[in-house]
Formats: sequence, structure tokens, C-alpha cells
Amino acid sequence: MIKVGVIGFGYWGPNLVRNFSESDQTQVVGVADVNAKRLAVVQARYPGMQTTSDPLELIKDPNVDAIVVATPVSTHFDLAMAALAAGKHVLVEKPITSTSEQASRLIEEAEKRKLTLMVDHTFVYTSAVRKIRELVLNGELGQPYYYDSVRINLGAFQHDVNVIWDLAVHDLAILQYVLRNEPAAVSATGMSHVAGQIENIAYLTLFFPDSFIAHIHVNWLAPVKIRRTLLGGSRRMLIYDDVESSEKIKIYDKGIHIADSPEGAHQLRINYRAGDMWAPHIEATEALKLEVQEFASAIKAGRKPLTDGEAGLKVVRILETATESMARRGQVLEIAKGVLA
Amino acid sequence: MIKVGVIGFGYWGPNLVRNFSESDQTQVVGVADVNAKRLAVVQARYPGMQTTSDPLELIKDPNVDAIVVATPVSTHFDLAMAALAAGKHVLVEKPITSTSEQASRLIEEAEKRKLTLMVDHTFVYTSAVRKIRELVLNGELGQPYYYDSVRINLGAFQHDVNVIWDLAVHDLAILQYVLRNEPAAVSATGMSHVAGQIENIAYLTLFFPDSFIAHIHVNWLAPVKIRRTLLGGSRRMLIYDDVESSEKIKIYDKGIHIADSPEGAHQLRINYRAGDMWAPHIEATEALKLEVQEFASAIKAGRKPLTDGEAGLKVVRILETATESMARRGQVLEIAKGVLA
Amino acid sequence: MIKVGVIGFGYWGPNLVRNFSESDQTQVVGVADVNAKRLAVVQARYPGMQTTSDPLELIKDPNVDAIVVATPVSTHFDLAMAALAAGKHVLVEKPITSTSEQASRLIEEAEKRKLTLMVDHTFVYTSAVRKIRELVLNGELGQPYYYDSVRINLGAFQHDVNVIWDLAVHDLAILQYVLRNEPAAVSATGMSHVAGQIENIAYLTLFFPDSFIAHIHVNWLAPVKIRRTLLGGSRRMLIYDDVESSEKIKIYDKGIHIADSPEGAHQLRINYRAGDMWAPHIEATEALKLEVQEFASAIKAGRKPLTDGEAGLKVVRILETATESMARRGQVLEIAKGVLA
Amino acid sequence: MIKVGVIGFGYWGPNLVRNFSESDQTQVVGVADVNAKRLAVVQARYPGMQTTSDPLELIKDPNVDAIVVATPVSTHFDLAMAALAAGKHVLVEKPITSTSEQASRLIEEAEKRKLTLMVDHTFVYTSAVRKIRELVLNGELGQPYYYDSVRINLGAFQHDVNVIWDLAVHDLAILQYVLRNEPAAVSATGMSHVAGQIENIAYLTLFFPDSFIAHIHVNWLAPVKIRRTLLGGSRRMLIYDDVESSEKIKIYDKGIHIADSPEGAHQLRINYRAGDMWAPHIEATEALKLEVQEFASAIKAGRKPLTDGEAGLKVVRILETATESMARRGQVLEIAKGVLA
Repeated sequence: MIKVGVIGFGYWGPNLVRNFSESDQTQVVGVADVNAKRLAVVQARYPGMQTTSDPLELIKDPNVDAIVVATPVSTHFDLAMAALAAGKHVLVEKPITSTSEQASRLIEEAEKRKLTLMVDHTFVYTSAVRKIRELVLNGELGQPYYYDSVRINLGAFQHDVNVIWDLAVHDLAILQYVLRNEPAAVSATGMSHVAGQIENIAYLTLFFPDSFIAHIHVNWLAPVKIRRTLLGGSRRMLIYDDVESSEKIKIYDKGIHIADSPEGAHQLRINYRAGDMWAPHIEATEALKLEVQEFASAIKAGRKPLTDGEAGLKVVRILETATESMARRGQVLEIAKGVLA
Repeated sequence: MIKVGVIGFGYWGPNLVRNFSESDQTQVVGVADVNAKRLAVVQARYPGMQTTSDPLELIKDPNVDAIVVATPVSTHFDLAMAALAAGKHVLVEKPITSTSEQASRLIEEAEKRKLTLMVDHTFVYTSAVRKIRELVLNGELGQPYYYDSVRINLGAFQHDVNVIWDLAVHDLAILQYVLRNEPAAVSATGMSHVAGQIENIAYLTLFFPDSFIAHIHVNWLAPVKIRRTLLGGSRRMLIYDDVESSEKIKIYDKGIHIADSPEGAHQLRINYRAGDMWAPHIEATEALKLEVQEFASAIKAGRKPLTDGEAGLKVVRILETATESMARRGQVLEIAKGVLA
Repeated sequence: MIKVGVIGFGYWGPNLVRNFSESDQTQVVGVADVNAKRLAVVQARYPGMQTTSDPLELIKDPNVDAIVVATPVSTHFDLAMAALAAGKHVLVEKPITSTSEQASRLIEEAEKRKLTLMVDHTFVYTSAVRKIRELVLNGELGQPYYYDSVRINLGAFQHDVNVIWDLAVHDLAILQYVLRNEPAAVSATGMSHVAGQIENIAYLTLFFPDSFIAHIHVNWLAPVKIRRTLLGGSRRMLIYDDVESSEKIKIYDKGIHIADSPEGAHQLRINYRAGDMWAPHIEATEALKLEVQEFASAIKAGRKPLTDGEAGLKVVRILETATESMARRGQVLEIAKGVLA
Repeated sequence: MIKVGVIGFGYWGPNLVRNFSESDQTQVVGVADVNAKRLAVVQARYPGMQTTSDPLELIKDPNVDAIVVATPVSTHFDLAMAALAAGKHVLVEKPITSTSEQASRLIEEAEKRKLTLMVDHTFVYTSAVRKIRELVLNGELGQPYYYDSVRINLGAFQHDVNVIWDLAVHDLAILQYVLRNEPAAVSATGMSHVAGQIENIAYLTLFFPDSFIAHIHVNWLAPVKIRRTLLGGSRRMLIYDDVESSEKIKIYDKGIHIADSPEGAHQLRINYRAGDMWAPHIEATEALKLEVQEFASAIKAGRKPLTDGEAGLKVVRILETATESMARRGQVLEIAKGVLA
């Protein structure tokens, strides 16, 4: 039984606490939060669970094996580093840190101490995204052409990160997992509509070494909640709509076929193919359940988890570069490689 | 009765011929097309209507008052210029020309000869877009924040223009009409997935003098047809879904409210407002019917039509700049002003 | 070339005239309508086509081979009978007549004179309904369990027939074609919300010899247009949504599986099966085009068309019985068999 | 603090336990269930809560003030009667009992002992249904014309009641609350598709003293989950879609307008009115939270709750009559009045 301390009981923390509680491999021994009301909720819901306003109490508790960090991004590095330094395994909410330099230091620290460092790239553990990866690997889509994601809703303006860090991070984690291919450069644009605040709407174009292109639209000020991704390939195309409760993924047997033009070599003739649509049954397993298993299993086996520190670092590096590109109104910037920046 | 000759009976031409035939102010005297099969369709559908494979036959016909050009973009300038030179009024399919220099020359020629030059920016004549303009002008949305449009489908790859010139042109015409404000700069990205061909997917970000931002996603290789625009404002936000047969426009009384933070001046407190949704009844009038009226009425009055040559020129200038930005992978470029480039 | 006279140029007539004009097997020689404005539209759209306010002019015209009747239901019998008596083949708008006795007389007359009598059960000629029939015949759905249709919208209140005769007629024609099985009895309920008028909302339950059940909801006073049919079977279930422009048919690999209960014989254990969904590509051919072909082909071959007089009669007999059941507030009534009532 | 014992921790029980736990007016002291696994879940989720396989243990516990019955319908009466006999207030899952005679006896017993008897007609406590009632009472819809509900999905076949008792019960509770008017008669049809089992698909038509008509379609064997109700009125019509997470209610300013016909008195002219659509913001309060408040408040005040025993009885009487009508394949049956059958 891995004993877990959870820091942060805001939006996502309650889901983490519930899943770590219900797993038969882990046990939540305590929750830390600066907000007393939230701690009262913990106590009402989980009588007997230790609560504290001081995260260090959990980090230093010899009874705790692992720390889960679910606090604002700007605090991730300090809390995770303190936990690693105290010999705890660490799972950090996405994005792993505020800078790639911080992420690199956490990776180094975890390796030095032979501890498990994992980032909560939740979508990687959803049945839908795993199905998409399977479809891509099996060649069902043919050669991937483009990834286009719209991830918008009203709300959740954050104070310490712009909308890219809050929402685009999901798409970057999905792309990393599904494509196993890294973007070479990014062009980003965006705008703030609250005086003195950070960007609440943003658009990212990611360029890859081949002709694959990815685009991400994130927005905190939209009238409806949309979570829709198009993934186009040379053989088929799919739509992943995460707001749908069923039929989350629809695969379209549609595309183009290039034929030699009978009228001469100067132009290609493009034929269109419109075939069936197919929506595979997707299991309704909660992603966090699988993620908790992965964390526990990685700790036990002393192996790297699927979404390890490096996965988190690579995403942060794109976030940094995109933010810089956005400041330059879309100027394309190369994305650095390598674990250590 | 204005006597009209229509050049081009491909995708859009039949709609133009039908509308010019059914108007009580205009009459179609002839149709020109290089394709004999299409001319046979004209004759079956409109017994007695003159058909020809030579556009000059119509252009030079003294019985013709006005020429409608509905051919591929690369031919617009030559045909329109020949028609103006022959003393005919001209309506040109969108985009008006392949270059802003060509558009300027058509404007000059039309002015010199006191002829009506109009561009077929169809959406400007739809009930939905006119309603949106009314909502913006009346202040229903408050200060406009952003325009975000997705205009994608499978098909209609063109040989002489990329997807921006084919699809984004609609959004640029809508923006021009609704906002009465011109973009200052554009950043565009895109990709071609057909070897040696032009871009089939593209993303444009338009920057305006204030904090308004517009983004357009166009794609010829999408599994479904989407025509959806979000228009966000400080008071309300709307969604315009042109694929819907009813409830094309939904207005959301939602937004944010900035309050002083009680916890100190260092950060703003953002409250969310979620109110009613409202879908105004939209008349089902065909846009082309209104457009034909406008063309006829402008000719009779000797006045400039709503979508005159200059409206066409301004759109072409953005298309040119966006194409250049796309070649530079998103580098922001200023958009030139003034009628003559 | 079969020469056709069309009587009635109201809602449906224009579609008939267009399709009979564009077919290379038929030619429209004239159109009759009591409304002069409509005849003016005919002349504008088809210069040279004969128009008349007197249907008998077409019926008696020796140049006419076949008559198409697209007038209000109450006039079908007289016009069709006159046409048959004049030696013309006849296609009648649905429902074929106002009573089954009238339908029987038309069938008799057509047989006596060796003329083709066909009813315009349009949906039988749609690609979607033909695909559904194919799925049922191939056993894709297993044993059919139920058919449930909602066919509602605002409008088209008729004066001579209630909503069952106007809308449920489509479902009865589809059921007849898809199932090749006739209902044994019907229970119907309904209501009128306009004083002194006929029912504008109605519900029909059709009982079949086995446990198959069909239900039809028709309504002229609904806020939205819905055309949705569920067809449940022992192996799979489908949804046919005719308002959708693509993905009209969705087949769900879902159902129940009856297992012996381990806890004793007193109750069955029911397991649920939730598999993939599949939307076959449906050709976008216009139904009337195929229907015109069938009419022409039946005339030439001297054979009965797919939707012959008897098909029309069987539907009318259900409509009659349902109307009688509705008057008795749902009392189940047996449906008579045999061609001659 | 009202101390509550909950009997039944199957599908609905966990929601009841959660809401009674989180209310500051009630406290759950124990849960009874015949299934040991479920009790283990209770203990894991609520450490320290009393669990038992014997409901009488809770019923007889002097520390318990009120009993909540969330077991199969066939057991409702015995458990509720035992609880009342033991002097406990009672909240019973819908439908209140298996027969109207049983319901009458519970009402009598509760009145005799001055105890609160309440039925869990959950939808009455939803924000959406309360908004609909408000719209009807305010005359927004004008004179109500019809209520049409589709409540279908795959699953939850029950062994002791047919689909009417499981699903139509919700609509009957909604109708009772929204209309404050009782149906006079019912015609019902249905079918079983599992040998020897009860009906899994059913259709009810309810006749009211005036021209209002209600229809309910319930189905356990449908490929998709639909929860959609149309409510038509003389002024406006609404659609209530409970599956939607937002915009659950859409109000259409549409309808018909009867005008005198200029062509004589023999027929009315019907004009159609198509206006705006409006979706009022609906609070996302959980219905059970409000229901728990009502139960607690009624107990404290010694008053009848909104959904009291009589409300439950009236619904059961319709369910009984509908089941009888269904056995007679749609024969209309009058619904008895009065509290005691």
C-alpha cells in the first residue's frame, strides 16, 4: 500500500483524492490546502483523514511515500522539489512546472534519488485517446496529415498562467502520446481582453519535420464548451468530441485520391472518396483510475511511468516557446530538443 | 430591364443565372462556358437562352448591359476588364481578382467609364450576417473581442488558388461588413498535403488596431462540413452556425465581470455571468436575390453598390498578405491601406 | 418518350414537373392548376410548356400518355378515374385516394384497361429507406422488434384530411416496403386544437401478427421539424434521421442477451451489449428521379410498378382504420385484408 | 438534525445517502442492503456508518427518525408500512407502491400517526421542471395543448414492474406538478420482446377534461438515451431536453393564428407564426438536495410535503389503469378519482 499525501484540494484535487482512496494499491493519509473550508469538506467526506494547511507537514511525514501536487502552476516546482528532497515519489498536476529549466531540475533530482517523477497528463489515460493512438499506430488513418483542436469554454481564468498553459497543455500531451513525434517549431497568436491580464484566447500552429501540421485553439471566454479534435490522414479522418457522452470518436472513411490528369501533366486530378462512418465503442473507465495504477506500478517496479518528467518537460518547452511566439505576434520559433535545456 | 450575360456555368453560375432570371429587374440573355455539356444543361433548363463557348461574344453583344463573371479566379481580371472596356457593368465572383493591383485597375476603369463594378461577396447579403451586423451596431454584444471562424469541408480543391482564397475570403467579407473596421496585420500558417499543390489547410490570425482579434480556420480536407463562427463581446457572445437550417444565430448572455479583489490590489477578481440564450428568427430569403437587387439598383441609380470594387480590393489585399505570411510560416505582416496599392 | 400531363402545381407539383422534365424517358407536355399565378410560374420557368386551368384539357389531350395527379386528396379519385377512363397511365400523389373503396375502383379500372396505376410513395425511392430494407433483409438487425417514428413540424394544416393522412402515410409506405409484412390491427389517438377542425396531432400503434410493434407520432403543431425513426431488432438497432444531411442512418451494435439466471429458474438474467456504431454512406440521389424511372419503365414493360395501386390501397385501409380508432379514443381495430374491400 | 436510515444501496440509494449526508438538517445513521458488497462500499465511502442486511434493524432503531426506502417496487409497501408502524417518517422511491390500494393504506397510516409520508418524485425538484411550471403558470405558453415525452434508453430491465412503472412514472409526476390538472382517461399500448417477460416498450395517451392531450413513449431497448419533452401551447411551445447539459429548455415563439377566410365561412385560414427561440438559464442545483430539504422541512413543520402520499397515489392509479389498458391493446379506460380507491 503506497501512502499518499495530496497537496491542493481545489478543482482537481478532489478527483485525485477520490481515486487514490478507491485504489487498492494506494491510500491517502493526508490532504493539505491553504483554504480551511476545503479542508472541512475533506473531513466531512473522509472522516479520519489527516488535514493540514501546511504542505510541508505532509512532505516531511515519514508515513508518506508519495506526494501529489495539485496546486497553482507557479508553486509546482517548489513543492515537487521539496518532496523529492524529502525522498518522496511525486505526481505533479499539468503542466509540470512554469519553466523548462525547473522541469529539468526536477528530472535530475528524481534520477539522482531513484524516485518516481510523474506528470498528470490526464488525457493520455482516457480510453478515447488510447483508442486514437491505436488507430494511428495500426495505420487506420494512413499517413497523419493534421491535428486540429478546439478547446474552449467560459471560465477558469487563471492568474499565474495564460490560456495556453491551462488548456493547450492537454493537446500537447495528446499529440506527444498519439504521434510519438515532436514538433520542430511553433507559431502562436493570442490576445488579452482583461486589462493588465494574461492572454485569454490563443492559437498555436505546430510545425513538424514532415508535412504534418497541428493547430490548437484555446479560449477562456467562449459562450459554449467545445472539446473537439480533428485528426486527418491520407486514408481516413477522425473527429474526437470529448463533450459527447457516447460516440466520442467518429472515423470517416473519406479522403482524396490523386489521379493522373487525362488533360496533361500540368495539373493533378483530385477525386473525392466518401465512405462509411464508424464510431468504435469506447470503455467508460475513468482516466484517473488508470493513472493512479500507472503511478503505483511505476513506483513498485522502479521504472519510469508513461508520463514521466521528460514528457512533462517536453510539453513545457513547447508552452514556453509558444508564449514567446505569441509575444512576437506569430513569429515562428524553433523548439529546443534534449532533456537538459 | 437590365440585360445580363453570364460567363461561367460551373458550381455557382447556375445560381446566378436562376436569380438573374427570376428577378423582375434583370433578364439573362446569354450564358458562356467552355464546357459544351454545361451549355446543354442551360438550353434544357432555359429553352431559347443564347449559349456560347466564347465569352467575348457576350461581352461584345450590344444587347447586353451587364456581365457576370463566374469563372476561375485567374480569369476574373481579363474578363472583367474586357467587359468594362466594352462598356458593360460588371459583377465578379469572389475574390474579385488574383492580385490587388488587378483589382485597383478594375476600379479605375469602372470609375473612368462611370460603370458599376461589384464583387459577389454573397454572405453580406444573407439574413444571418445582416442580423449579426445589426446586433454589433446596436451594441448588443458590447465591445467586440474576437471573431473565430471554422469553414471546413471535404472537397473543391482548386488549381489556381489556395484554400485561403477560396474559403477565408467569405470571412474577410463578413468581417468587413459587420465590423466596419480593417485589420492592421495578419499572421497565417498552412500546409499542402498534395505533392506540388497549393495549401489545402490554413489558419489566419488578423490583428486590429485595438484588442479585437480574428481567426479563420479553412480546410479542404475535413471529414465534415463545418461553418461556425464565434463572435465574442464584452456584453454578450454569439455563435453563427450556417449549416443549421434554423437557429443559425445563438446569442449568449454570458461573460465575465471584473471586480476589485477584496484581497488586495495585486490581482483582479473575475466573476462569470451565465444568463439566457436567445436565437432570433432569421428570414429565409436567398442571399443572391438581394444581391441581384443591389446590382440592378446600383446600376440604375449610378451609385456604388454595397460590395463595390473597393470592398473586393481590400479583401484581396488581405488574401495576398496572408499568403505571403503563410510562406513565412506565420510571420506577422502589415496590411497596406488605400485604394491604389 | 412518354408524354406527361401534370395536374397540380402546388407544394409537390414543381418537383414532379422538374423530374419528369429532366428524365430522358419522359417529357412534360402540360401543367394544369386552378391558380393562375402558379401557371405563370410554370411559363416563366418552362417557356413553351402548355398550361391550363382545366385538368380535363390534359386528360383528354390525345398527345398525353400519362397523367400525374398532385392535387388535394379529396380530388384524387375523380381525376385519376377520369384519366384512366381516357386511357392514360396514372401516377397519383400519396395517399392514393380518400377511401379504400375508391382505391379498389381505380385498381379495377386500371387492370381492365391494362394501364399502369402508381402511387407516389416517395420514401420508398430514397436511398436511405432502400438501405434500411437491405439491412433488414440481410438480417443485420436480427428479428425486427419495433419501428418508432416521429414526424412532426409546424405547418401545412390541411383542410380535407387529418394529420394521419398527411404524415403517417409516409411511415405506412416505408413499413410496407421495408418489412413486407402487414399490420393486423391499429390503435390510434389524437386531438384537434383548432375549433371545428380535424386532428393536428395523432399517435398510431400498429400491431403485427408477431411481437413486432410499430408506433407513429405525427404532429402539425410542433416547434421543430423532426423526422426520426428507430428500428429495433434482436441483433442491432438503427436510427434513421431524415433531417440529417449526412449520416442519415446509424446502426448500433447494441442489444440485450438473455442468460439463464444462476440464482434459479424464476427469473431471467438480462445482459446488455454495447458495441460500435456504424453509419453507412448513403447516395444522395433524389428519390423522385428513381420514381420517374420506375413509372416509365413499368409503362413500357406493361408490368406493375413497385408502388402500385394495391400498395396505395393497403395504406389507405390502415389510414381509414386508424381514423376510426382515433374517433374511439384508441380502441384497437382489425385491419381488413384483400384487394377488394 | 433528523436521523435517517436508508434501505437499499443499489442504483439510486448512493445518491440518497450522499445528499442526506451532506445536508445540514439530516444525518444518515445507517444503511441496509441485502448485498454485502454494496455494504462494503458504504463502509469504504463513509467510515463509521452503520450497515446491516436487515432493514428491520434500521426501522426499529430508536435512534432513527426517518426511513428512506430505495428498494425494488414490490417491497415498498411492506417496508414503508413497517416504518410508519414503528413511528418513523418515510420517503419512498418512485413509484410509491405497486397498487393504489397499498398507497391508500400508507396515506391512512401516516395520517393516523401524524407522520410525514413523501414520495421521491425527483423531477419535481429539478430546476428545469420548476422553470417549466413557472412558464405554464405565467401563461407564457398560452393554453396548454399537448405534452409529448420520449424517455428511452438501453437497459435497466426490471423484473417486478414493466417499463411504464419504471419510466412513465417520471412524466406522470411532472404532468401532475406542472399542469395541476388530472387526466381523465388513458389508452396504452406496448409489447414485450423477452419471452415471458413484462413489457419493455410502451406508449401512453392521456386524455384530459379539455382538449389537452399527453403522450409518453417509454422504452428499455433503445439504441440511444433520449429524454425529450415537447410542451405545446396556444402562444408558444417548448422543448425540454434533459440530456443536454446546458440549454435544457428551449421556448419557441411559434404557433398558428386562425384568421377568417376571405373566401367564405366554410373553411378557416391558418397562418403560421415563426418567431425567436429563447433558452432561459437554468440553475444547476441537484434535485435531491432540494428534495431532502423539503422532506426535512415538512417533518419539522408537521406539514404535507410537496410530493406527498396522495401525489404518489394519483400517479400509481394512472400506472395501474395504463397497464390494464395496455393488456386490452389500447382500450381507453377512465382513471378513478379520490384518495381512497
